Amino acid sequence: MLKKRIIKEHKKKGLIAVFTGNGKGKTTSAIGNAVRAAGHGMKSIMIQFMKGTIHYGELDSANKLLKKYFRIIPMGKGCTWEIKDKEQYKKNIKKTWEFSKNIILSNKYSIVILDEINCAISYGFLNIDDVIGFLKKKPEQIHVILTGRDADKKLAEIADLVTEMKEIKHQFKKGISAQKGIEY
Amino acid sequence: MLKKRIIKEHKKKGLIAVFTGNGKGKTTSAIGNAVRAAGHGMKSIMIQFMKGTIHYGELDSANKLLKKYFRIIPMGKGCTWEIKDKEQYKKNIKKTWEFSKNIILSNKYSIVILDEINCAISYGFLNIDDVIGFLKKKPEQIHVILTGRDADKKLAEIADLVTEMKEIKHQFKKGISAQKGIEY
Repeated sequence: MLKKRIIKEHKKKGLIAVFTGNGKGKTTSAIGNAVRAAGHGMKSIMIQFMKGTIHYGELDSANKLLKKYFRIIPMGKGCTWEIKDKEQYKKNIKKTWEFSKNIILSNKYSIVILDEINCAISYGFLNIDDVIGFLKKKPEQIHVILTGRDADKKLAEIADLVTEMKEIKHQFKKGISAQKGIEY
Repeated sequence: MLKKRIIKEHKKKGLIAVFTGNGKGKTTSAIGNAVRAAGHGMKSIMIQFMKGTIHYGELDSANKLLKKYFRIIPMGKGCTWEIKDKEQYKKNIKKTWEFSKNIILSNKYSIVILDEINCAISYGFLNIDDVIGFLKKKPEQIHVILTGRDADKKLAEIADLVTEMKEIKHQFKKGISAQKGIEY
C-alpha cells in the first residue's frame, strides 16, 4: 500500500543533498545511494575532491562490479594535512570543479556525487558563491550529493536535504585502528 | 605514506557499529560499507528487521550486481504504523533475530548489517539485554552494523563506533516526495 502511495505521489525532482558532520558515514551513504539507484538502472558518478592518494575498497567495487552504473573518479591530491604546495592543491581543486560542472551538464548521470567538496570550500580552495550559483541553475532532473565536513550554511540553505553525520563514538579514540571494509 | 601508515597500524578487529538518528543515511551508509568491503573481496549481508513490503533499489543491485559479495534478506513486515497484528509482528522480529544470530555465528560474512534493529528494540519487540549479551560474545573478527532510529544507550556503550545521522533539512517538509534512487 505504501509502495503505491510513493509511486502515486512521486514527482521527479533532482535533489541537492548534503551529507556533512564530523562522523563516519558521509561518503558511504552517498555510495549507498548510488547502489540504490543502480537497482533502478540509474547511473551515478562520484568525483573525489580530496581523496586520490589512498586506495579505497569502493574504487574496486565500482570499477569491477557496478561499472555500468557507478563510476568513481579520484581527482584529489590527498588530505589537507598532506598539502605541500598550496597553490598547486588549489589549482587541482579548481580543475576538479570544472570537471564536475561538465559532468553535471552532460546529463549522462542521474546522480553526481561531489565527494569532500564541503572541505574544499571550507578550506577556501573553492568559492561557495560560485558553487551555489551553478547548483541553482543545474539541470532540473539531476541529483547532486555534496559530502564533507563543515558544509557552508549558504549551501544548506539552498539544499533540499541535509544530514549531519555526528560522531558520538569512534574506535580510533579507543586505540583501535582503521578497519578494512569499514574505513577504507 | 598514509596508506603505509594505515596498513602498518592495522589490527583486524570486528567492530560493533551503530548508525542512528532521525536523518537520512543510516541504511545507505551501511550499504556503502558493504560496497567498500566488496572491493576487498569481503562478503556482507544485510538482514532487514522492518523493511520487506516496499521494494528498494538496493535489493536489485545486491542481487544482480553484487551478488557474490552482498546479500539483502528482507524479513520485515513493514513499518510500525502499518502493524495490524502486534503479536504476529513481534514473533516475526524474534524470528529475524534468531536468523541473524545464526548468520553471525556462521562466520560466512565479514560484515553483518542488522537493518532497523534499533527500532525493533525501541518499540519493545526485542530485548536489549539479549542483543547486547549476544554481541559481547560474537566471533571476534566479524563486523556488526546496527541501524535505525533511537539506538538504545546500552548499545552505544558497548559499540566501537556510533554515528548519529541528524536531520537538518528534508525535502518532505517542502512537499517534495520520495525520489527514486535517493529514498527507495
